Amino acid sequence: MKDELLNFLKQQIPISEELEQIIAENTLFKQFKKGTVLLREGEVSKECYFVLKGCIKRYYMLDGDEKITGFFTEGQVITPASYTDRLPSKFYLSCIEATIASVTDPETEALLYQKYPSLVSLSRELGEKLMVSISNEFDDWVRFNPEERYLLLLKNRPELLQRIPQYQLANYIGIQPQSLSRIRKRLYK
Amino acid sequence: MKDELLNFLKQQIPISEELEQIIAENTLFKQFKKGTVLLREGEVSKECYFVLKGCIKRYYMLDGDEKITGFFTEGQVITPASYTDRLPSKFYLSCIEATIASVTDPETEALLYQKYPSLVSLSRELGEKLMVSISNEFDDWVRFNPEERYLLLLKNRPELLQRIPQYQLANYIGIQPQSLSRIRKRLYK
Repeated sequence: MKDELLNFLKQQIPISEELEQIIAENTLFKQFKKGTVLLREGEVSKECYFVLKGCIKRYYMLDGDEKITGFFTEGQVITPASYTDRLPSKFYLSCIEATIASVTDPETEALLYQKYPSLVSLSRELGEKLMVSISNEFDDWVRFNPEERYLLLLKNRPELLQRIPQYQLANYIGIQPQSLSRIRKRLYK
Repeated sequence: MKDELLNFLKQQIPISEELEQIIAENTLFKQFKKGTVLLREGEVSKECYFVLKGCIKRYYMLDGDEKITGFFTEGQVITPASYTDRLPSKFYLSCIEATIASVTDPETEALLYQKYPSLVSLSRELGEKLMVSISNEFDDWVRFNPEERYLLLLKNRPELLQRIPQYQLANYIGIQPQSLSRIRKRLYK
């Protein structure tokens, strides 16, 4: 697990040997069963996640219906708003596959930054990359229609389309499951 | 200008006197006329912006049509993807009002981080807050329809609705200008 985490990080950013060791010694890994709810609406989040294996779904409950706004898989990070602002979460996080993640809590994070200043710099650079990737995702969403969003997922995250049940994928893209079936049929012809 | 910048920052995060001075001494302010294009599709961005006054629009050109994905006003930050990944930009940035911004380039940023390690920590914390706010904005977009998005802007950024021409606002929200007029009429009744 430690090797996988370090490999993921190294793909993003150069990491010194000193930092490698700090990360290897201080990372807490947790395993979650499929179906585990990591965060509920109204709770204050005490954890952020770096997914090493599996898939975490972010969703809201709107008038009793689930609205999915993200699927986080290998190499992706989830820092809930509530983890940062210490306010009750507006969304849920749950594992839709058996999941292994490196998990950080705010107290440990603060301690590590104090102890290892080079970690602050790493976190800043990773955070900047993450911000840009969320911003790109936002723009993709705003300027494309559901069919174009599906094509974008097919291009950028083909493995996701194999892993996620169709009705959840449709929910995420913003259409009815029947419309997604029609899009898929048309594309595969 | 320096005071305004520091006040904005202090609202976000505690800042030591040492950091205040570093920021005051090292910030470059630029004034841009209304209509200035700061970044074009295909260019590599050499600047990121902290808006102190005015409004910067982010938009894509799709088949000759503009698609707006953001309006950045006082206190907001724009770090173009292209600034971070050094790849050609997919979007445009232009000032739709006379704008004053603090401007940073990658070389100066790297030098300042080297010289003032406490700046790295500030930037990490600000970046985390920014990431969360972009992520919230994304979720708002995905789970709400255009009328709900308009209501959300009315609640969160009422001043924006006064400043932005209606057709640009409609473009941003994702509807025809006539539909926005209808929504507004219905709401103000």
